[in-house]
Amino acid sequence: MEKKIPYKIYLGEDEIPTQWYNMRADMKTKPAPLISPADGHALTLEEMNPIFCEELNKQELDNDTAYFDIPAPVLEFYKMYRPSPLVRAYFLEKALGTPAKIYYKFEGNNTSGSHKLNSSIAQAYYAKAQGLKGVTTETGAGQWGTALSMACAYFGLDCKVYMVKVSYEQKPFRREVMRTYGATVTPSPSQTTEVGRKILADHPGTTGSLGCAISEAVEAAVSTPGYRYVLGSVLNQVVLHQSIIGLETQAALRKYDIKPDILIGCAGGGSNLGGFAAPFFGEILRGEANYKIIGVEPASCPSFTRGTFAYDFCDTGMICPLAKMYTLGSQFIPSANHAGGLRFHGISPTLAQLYHDGLFEARAVEQTAVFEAAEQFARTEGILPAPESSHAIRVAIDEALKCKETGEEKTIVFNLTGTGYFDLYAYQQFNDKTMSDVIPSDEAIADSLKKLPKFGNE
Amino acid sequence: MEKKIPYKIYLGEDEIPTQWYNMRADMKTKPAPLISPADGHALTLEEMNPIFCEELNKQELDNDTAYFDIPAPVLEFYKMYRPSPLVRAYFLEKALGTPAKIYYKFEGNNTSGSHKLNSSIAQAYYAKAQGLKGVTTETGAGQWGTALSMACAYFGLDCKVYMVKVSYEQKPFRREVMRTYGATVTPSPSQTTEVGRKILADHPGTTGSLGCAISEAVEAAVSTPGYRYVLGSVLNQVVLHQSIIGLETQAALRKYDIKPDILIGCAGGGSNLGGFAAPFFGEILRGEANYKIIGVEPASCPSFTRGTFAYDFCDTGMICPLAKMYTLGSQFIPSANHAGGLRFHGISPTLAQLYHDGLFEARAVEQTAVFEAAEQFARTEGILPAPESSHAIRVAIDEALKCKETGEEKTIVFNLTGTGYFDLYAYQQFNDKTMSDVIPSDEAIADSLKKLPKFGNE
Repeated sequence: MEKKIPYKIYLGEDEIPTQWYNMRADMKTKPAPLISPADGHALTLEEMNPIFCEELNKQELDNDTAYFDIPAPVLEFYKMYRPSPLVRAYFLEKALGTPAKIYYKFEGNNTSGSHKLNSSIAQAYYAKAQGLKGVTTETGAGQWGTALSMACAYFGLDCKVYMVKVSYEQKPFRREVMRTYGATVTPSPSQTTEVGRKILADHPGTTGSLGCAISEAVEAAVSTPGYRYVLGSVLNQVVLHQSIIGLETQAALRKYDIKPDILIGCAGGGSNLGGFAAPFFGEILRGEANYKIIGVEPASCPSFTRGTFAYDFCDTGMICPLAKMYTLGSQFIPSANHAGGLRFHGISPTLAQLYHDGLFEARAVEQTAVFEAAEQFARTEGILPAPESSHAIRVAIDEALKCKETGEEKTIVFNLTGTGYFDLYAYQQFNDKTMSDVIPSDEAIADSLKKLPKFGNE
Repeated sequence: MEKKIPYKIYLGEDEIPTQWYNMRADMKTKPAPLISPADGHALTLEEMNPIFCEELNKQELDNDTAYFDIPAPVLEFYKMYRPSPLVRAYFLEKALGTPAKIYYKFEGNNTSGSHKLNSSIAQAYYAKAQGLKGVTTETGAGQWGTALSMACAYFGLDCKVYMVKVSYEQKPFRREVMRTYGATVTPSPSQTTEVGRKILADHPGTTGSLGCAISEAVEAAVSTPGYRYVLGSVLNQVVLHQSIIGLETQAALRKYDIKPDILIGCAGGGSNLGGFAAPFFGEILRGEANYKIIGVEPASCPSFTRGTFAYDFCDTGMICPLAKMYTLGSQFIPSANHAGGLRFHGISPTLAQLYHDGLFEARAVEQTAVFEAAEQFARTEGILPAPESSHAIRVAIDEALKCKETGEEKTIVFNLTGTGYFDLYAYQQFNDKTMSDVIPSDEAIADSLKKLPKFGNE
């Protein structure tokens, strides 16, 4: 007899995976390495160590080891909020009247409000194990900064967050969560760094940018003994840590003999899509199974669907190493009207390579449609989703409605990365019907792509 | 061999209690009935039906039925977010260095952010079953309004929330969550009711009060065909619905053969303390067991510890029925400096009677000490607690530290009612060190108590 599927599938704490899975080991074409913006050579461990933590650099460069042991203290911390539930969306299915079976992995039941904590705790651990005093980072909306401050509080590390000034002022609540966890939050640009002082002198009254905050965080790390810089997305190491999401999802599905047909994740820098889909990509890469995997991005910032596969800067400040990715150009800035997150111009090199090799499909969705899906999901499933996550919800609903037309009983699984409790300005725009869709013109994208670096692209 | 206690004890969905427990059935002295403010007679079902839902009124007046079946649609909704976990606070215990074993029931893992949803879904169900079009209510900070709007969205009921104007303007995020769930949120006082118009004429520029919002919500309910007024605390029916918290806690403890020594809940109107402790009070009342139960209230609003046991108005507007409770007087308003919630001047009649009969102890705590506990909890257990819940955390920590001194291995269980994601103004005050403790003077309380009604107190 078929087991009755509960509303929420919880693994036991002894079923939390004890290793992270590194997709790169199974990829025939490895992701292109990070290269120097100065002369285009592939960066070495020795060159990366002054900026990033050593053990993380090893993970970053390792394309061969398939499984990394999760350190015991990280595994213990995971038990604070993991395993996260795999939820059967019975209420949503009923509202849609679809024969499809919809599941979502819910990563938002922790105070950071998102999956970011999975990597921040690992990064803080390695920083502590290396004997560092603290770490620096940048944050825009604040999810990564919050996750990092929680992790640093746990390991007794100092945490310096450079927060884009406009966010610092307009989103005081994220800032206060970080402060409650003991982080120092500095509005960027600031007087605390050389690059900050220069930008303030050149552009008095600027409200800052993520690119500038990255530059300040990197300077603060390399100029302060005992500090390193850490990053919450894009890098291979982050995708590695986030594989915990996919491994738990896979274990929960197997527990009830569920075979997914479609797997859906939203795509910004790529850490959640990569982490969620990792073991399923692994099965495809090893020829063991086949799945339809969909990455969903905002139509306002369509790296996969309208970007180009090339080396580019990861930051708008054009000082960081170059990564090979699908990119809209490092100078691309989504319309100010864009409220739905996922603003990064590029994508993790690992995912870029997988996309280039045809392992998954990308879809761009418009933000009013995204918030319509978010509202329907909130009302039926009782969780107010993060705008980012709602991109995946939109496509999950679209696919379920297709099943309604065809009568197919497909199994759809998506990653609900987080909650929208700190994104209510965006919901207000939607409720007030002042939200609109702005799609970048071909000219704007072509213009931005003119500034691709020459190294790696010659 | 003793079973290893996991970090989070989850019951199965088939272990969710199917009945609510009504403590009043086991009480020798029943709580005093609600009486009319006009002539002091005990209100009858017929008198209550035009204002409140019929089935809820029956529950309100029933002092004899020990168990009420939870309706199937409510039970199904509960599976959206229940059973809630009973968490072993291993991380906090370690930080405190205490031999005590600390557990907390976590009611905040749903979008309303608190336990309020347990009762709002029941109340919405009965309203729908009665064939009503909608319900009205008031909200201050917004937890109850959010929970009710979620419940109404689920059952397709119209939901009119009167939100104290100052909160409406200063806390736009809670308002937007309610709007996302389809509720109409009106700043109170408003032009939509007679009482609202009168107050606006008499006090132009007023920022509103909970008493005024109650008056508007009641008027809107009785003057609109197909509407009734609902309330999120104080009433016996609410304590009944919230017994789901205690019943699940009891089941989880029994599953691992854990015998609690101390049970702790915060006390505002009394719904969470009453619901959490209900089955344990039941055991005491039936002479089956004994527990130390502690209700924790703010020193700024100390109903139990400095109030008097008397009939009083439930609202500052002095129009609602009179309830016998521990009260500071219906005109008592906590200092504007008070940031920690639990502002109600009285307490549920059920709890008032239990307190009068010596079944539990009350303790008043100052808000800076409460936020110190909140911060320590957030940093160790990874959950940013609601200020209300943090009152219980404060006393749980105090009791655990006593155990550290004496070496006793007591088992402490408290109710973590919710999360603090919408209370970051208060955290900001704490982080900025601008928070202080203001304790009302004896004269202020005595003054306020001069306005007790004569009925019931003669």
